[in-house]
Amino acid sequence: MTGRAREFGLRSGILPVGARNMITDVPGVRVGQVTLTGHGINTGVTAIVPASGNLFTSKLVAGASVINGFGKSVGLVQLGELGTLETPIVLTNTFSVGPCSTALIRRAIGETPEIGRETSTVNPVVGECNDGALSDIQAMAVTEAHVFQAIEQASLHVDEGSVGAGTGMSCFGFKGGVGTASRKIEIDGKICHLGALVVANFGRAGDLVLPDGRNAAPGAQSEPEKGSIMVVLATDVPLDGGQMNRICRRAGAGIARLGAFWGNGSGDIVLGFTTANRIAHAPDADSAPLQRLGDHRIDDLFRAAAETTQEAILNALCMATAVKGRGGATRPLLSDWLRSAN
Amino acid sequence: MTGRAREFGLRSGILPVGARNMITDVPGVRVGQVTLTGHGINTGVTAIVPASGNLFTSKLVAGASVINGFGKSVGLVQLGELGTLETPIVLTNTFSVGPCSTALIRRAIGETPEIGRETSTVNPVVGECNDGALSDIQAMAVTEAHVFQAIEQASLHVDEGSVGAGTGMSCFGFKGGVGTASRKIEIDGKICHLGALVVANFGRAGDLVLPDGRNAAPGAQSEPEKGSIMVVLATDVPLDGGQMNRICRRAGAGIARLGAFWGNGSGDIVLGFTTANRIAHAPDADSAPLQRLGDHRIDDLFRAAAETTQEAILNALCMATAVKGRGGATRPLLSDWLRSAN
Amino acid sequence: MTGRAREFGLRSGILPVGARNMITDVPGVRVGQVTLTGHGINTGVTAIVPASGNLFTSKLVAGASVINGFGKSVGLVQLGELGTLETPIVLTNTFSVGPCSTALIRRAIGETPEIGRETSTVNPVVGECNDGALSDIQAMAVTEAHVFQAIEQASLHVDEGSVGAGTGMSCFGFKGGVGTASRKIEIDGKICHLGALVVANFGRAGDLVLPDGRNAAPGAQSEPEKGSIMVVLATDVPLDGGQMNRICRRAGAGIARLGAFWGNGSGDIVLGFTTANRIAHAPDADSAPLQRLGDHRIDDLFRAAAETTQEAILNALCMATAVKGRGGATRPLLSDWLRSAN
Amino acid sequence: MTGRAREFGLRSGILPVGARNMITDVPGVRVGQVTLTGHGINTGVTAIVPASGNLFTSKLVAGASVINGFGKSVGLVQLGELGTLETPIVLTNTFSVGPCSTALIRRAIGETPEIGRETSTVNPVVGECNDGALSDIQAMAVTEAHVFQAIEQASLHVDEGSVGAGTGMSCFGFKGGVGTASRKIEIDGKICHLGALVVANFGRAGDLVLPDGRNAAPGAQSEPEKGSIMVVLATDVPLDGGQMNRICRRAGAGIARLGAFWGNGSGDIVLGFTTANRIAHAPDADSAPLQRLGDHRIDDLFRAAAETTQEAILNALCMATAVKGRGGATRPLLSDWLRSAN
Repeated sequence: MTGRAREFGLRSGILPVGARNMITDVPGVRVGQVTLTGHGINTGVTAIVPASGNLFTSKLVAGASVINGFGKSVGLVQLGELGTLETPIVLTNTFSVGPCSTALIRRAIGETPEIGRETSTVNPVVGECNDGALSDIQAMAVTEAHVFQAIEQASLHVDEGSVGAGTGMSCFGFKGGVGTASRKIEIDGKICHLGALVVANFGRAGDLVLPDGRNAAPGAQSEPEKGSIMVVLATDVPLDGGQMNRICRRAGAGIARLGAFWGNGSGDIVLGFTTANRIAHAPDADSAPLQRLGDHRIDDLFRAAAETTQEAILNALCMATAVKGRGGATRPLLSDWLRSAN
Repeated sequence: MTGRAREFGLRSGILPVGARNMITDVPGVRVGQVTLTGHGINTGVTAIVPASGNLFTSKLVAGASVINGFGKSVGLVQLGELGTLETPIVLTNTFSVGPCSTALIRRAIGETPEIGRETSTVNPVVGECNDGALSDIQAMAVTEAHVFQAIEQASLHVDEGSVGAGTGMSCFGFKGGVGTASRKIEIDGKICHLGALVVANFGRAGDLVLPDGRNAAPGAQSEPEKGSIMVVLATDVPLDGGQMNRICRRAGAGIARLGAFWGNGSGDIVLGFTTANRIAHAPDADSAPLQRLGDHRIDDLFRAAAETTQEAILNALCMATAVKGRGGATRPLLSDWLRSAN
Repeated sequence: MTGRAREFGLRSGILPVGARNMITDVPGVRVGQVTLTGHGINTGVTAIVPASGNLFTSKLVAGASVINGFGKSVGLVQLGELGTLETPIVLTNTFSVGPCSTALIRRAIGETPEIGRETSTVNPVVGECNDGALSDIQAMAVTEAHVFQAIEQASLHVDEGSVGAGTGMSCFGFKGGVGTASRKIEIDGKICHLGALVVANFGRAGDLVLPDGRNAAPGAQSEPEKGSIMVVLATDVPLDGGQMNRICRRAGAGIARLGAFWGNGSGDIVLGFTTANRIAHAPDADSAPLQRLGDHRIDDLFRAAAETTQEAILNALCMATAVKGRGGATRPLLSDWLRSAN
Repeated sequence: MTGRAREFGLRSGILPVGARNMITDVPGVRVGQVTLTGHGINTGVTAIVPASGNLFTSKLVAGASVINGFGKSVGLVQLGELGTLETPIVLTNTFSVGPCSTALIRRAIGETPEIGRETSTVNPVVGECNDGALSDIQAMAVTEAHVFQAIEQASLHVDEGSVGAGTGMSCFGFKGGVGTASRKIEIDGKICHLGALVVANFGRAGDLVLPDGRNAAPGAQSEPEKGSIMVVLATDVPLDGGQMNRICRRAGAGIARLGAFWGNGSGDIVLGFTTANRIAHAPDADSAPLQRLGDHRIDDLFRAAAETTQEAILNALCMATAVKGRGGATRPLLSDWLRSAN
């Protein structure tokens, strides 16, 4: 029987939790997923739609952090230079980054036909993890249509575990997948949120440390860490791009608290955005006001980034269901371990 | 009548020039291109094959520099983390990055079927510029087959000007395109080379300064710089990855000497590799010797990076031929300007 | 006879020039210098006071760019993390960084006694170049008192050439020193400025290219570039810290246009600040509005950073007067070369 | 009664421990400390001498990682650019960085009188934390002589707790200080080591999580994290500079596992070096071989960096003795908490 981490008594940190305890507690954020299984394939697409409306003409302030760069994400160069996000964020398997980025370009052109003609090009943002241990990654099963479908289906509820981009993922030797969590932060008298969504596919078997100090080993053969984790952080706290980068860096603390050390073969990438300051593609004035959190309050967001990342990973692990992989490979479930350990 | 920059008396710097004055003066480097024209399309693929043999099992030491990150290149995250290159480098238009990176993955799997199954995934490296002013970029005309074809055709001669990825490019208001150059450097008594290949698509009309101090303005309307330049540097001087990053940075000096300031909308990206130290994917020993240039000699490579980048851009401009673009758009030729200015 | 670059007909770029053509055209910016000579010593202090009032309690938005990091500047780590400046910027010789940074700490404590006790510590910002070729740098002649004196004397007029931190500097084989320049930029209907101040101590003899294309060689022995350049950029255009970093990077274009390639042994460091958005040390509210230039206008600041850096270096060279260095060493004057070349 | 963490049953990780479990298990590394107390002063100097011989003429391969840059360390710009270390590393309080860096310059000149005259200048490396809560930091009690003394006294035994630079430090609301640890790693059939030394002055009271999962709160008022941690990593495993940077980054995982999230006001800086590849200041040849660990083995060093950093912090906490600070301020001891908790 799966359940979220808190149902198993696993609590990460001290900040108050959002109503859904999901990234979608940040107003405007929606998530859609497509799951592909069968014929040795266990893969899919997870799309984070950061806000409603045209993201290209009204961009979001964004940031990123490369904790360990053994990864093939797309879009980080421009996001890092300009500090803006202008498409949904799509997560998938390593070999499907190409069609996913093309789909985001095509979708942006559909909304703004001037792209690449009368105005500049669009920067698609795609993250990936390698699900090759449980899925036939060489089949390149994800198509542009799956991206369109995931974005269209985006809603406030986020399925966790072995779904979407998380379908074929492994984590600390257990079955991994998609997880999410959120925290509440009061800013200027208003309740704001920071939420995380992860595709958890990292961690050497035997290294997992639970928040209560227990070491959770799947009993399987330990192999070099060659997974990856994609973390997406969302908030409605007003920030500038440099602050968003700093917050993204703290997702690494959440990963480390679970016993990982950001292994050489792990692409540990964090993307983040705030919905609070929209940046016009074609502004009316030369300059505009941007609301910006004072750094004397940023520790709350650092803490929330670490806590939500840690808890989102635990949710991915606890919600994961059994998957029969390529060649019959499987991964034990942390939910089974937790029930038998009690 | 087009010609290379030196045929017009334009000399960049003082170092001695390689036999071909092309990136292929670096032993082992080959370049292949596919040009697509018609129906408003002027685009293509330029592939730099850095060495013979299986690049995944025997990687190259590599580096990069993001001079201005308004660009959608693929592969820089991992290249920056590990300092290695494991595929050819493919240059194309902005909206064709997806199929080009998928093609590189497929090609690597063809050579090493264990990729993504028994061993880790492969990191495709693709650079791009926006040829939307002269080409119907929304047509997404480049396919995986064009990448295979370009790599198969790779040879020691590099066509310059309006070919391959340079077919639809513009530069300082003139017709831009592909250009290349090289320099000779004596290291430990042996003649080595550093070569550059560029896709030149940057620079505001009116800003171009020739090496002799003349300002070359096309007489056209000046617009904001929203092009880009991709620079690929190759050398056979032995280096480590950190040194290669530093050398790549100096390509920015070559660009600046022509009057550019790395504009906001320009994706100015430099990739570099050395053929001197191959890195085994599955080494026999825990450690291995790497030959490394002393930093007391690195100024020669810095100078060569600046000189070859500057001259490669001038070669792209001087060799460019007229292209009839989308909606009949054209760009004047620098070769015409140079002849009429004399 | 010395003179500023424009008096010799040397013009850098196309933007309109501020009233003084100095960094002090930015309202609030003042510069003070102390020059030390005699007994083989030719060194000093140049202090840039970025604004009036207490800089610690009301910080400035700031940025930096390390073009080549062979340098011993102090304060860049924190400035890079937080994007704020909280002391004047002091420039000096390489071995006097210690007392200069201590002086800035002591001065800040004098203004805000809570520093290091009831509140956090202060981040002094000190830049340096190596004047060892013309000055007895081992004498460590600069004391804390010189820093206090320079800051107290700060005014709107900037002496150029062989003064302050520039007293013993060399540039492209000629006598170098302190130089400054400014540009006007209209933002939201208001005239703003960007100004540069440099200590120019870089460039191999024989590499200098003047804006008119002439190569200016001092006829001296060429040596490896082992100087350095410190660039300070000031503006009153409203920016965030990430934008300020990007603008600082463009100073490198101004340096490169003069023929340099940012040599291995050259510490080429750029610091920048805007007076437009002050950041409270102890804010009243959790968040505050920050006025921010749209990136669609940032090219003007990029261009101004390149132009003013180039012209400030030329001013340093053209205004430098003869200095008798340690052991009788001297450097020829560019002003002499320019007069004889005509 | 104080003791090292293992004496309290606190174990960090799984790798085998060096003979001393100190950074000095790396052959050639020595540590010397000077402690200053009285008149409200609790501060000092901790010097890490990385190897015997002249460090300027025979440099070490080095790296760094800025986990959170609210810090005033000196020397990181050049260390980051060149990947070399050419002086001992000195740790002290925030306001004593000036004299410590001057002392390192003076000491290097003593050993190599050509510095700043016939050859280039030297890059002193100094790290700091703010001990202002327990020490009169405004007194600037550390002088150059203390640095000379610490280096001269350097030996294989490292005093831990309230000594040297750690005398006045606080950590998670407890008394902090200096700590060290080491791990053994077999490379190419030879036993190598990685060791860490920390000055631990970070962490909000109430956030400390022990390796066994217990939360250790000092019962004191919680304040914003405004401390800092300096980590120095040493190894004799052969590496290049880029690898050393990557290893340094993993110290952040060790910090995070203890419950910290690298707070806004915390300068969390990591410096690292390997004794395995010395880099000649004036090499005989243009290039030279450098032995380099294969990245397939680097996970062991990542793990060792995380484990030793975590354990060094715990050793600092467990070995700290009571200090009467400025105005009578004190911090509870973790050793007391541990004994009373059992």
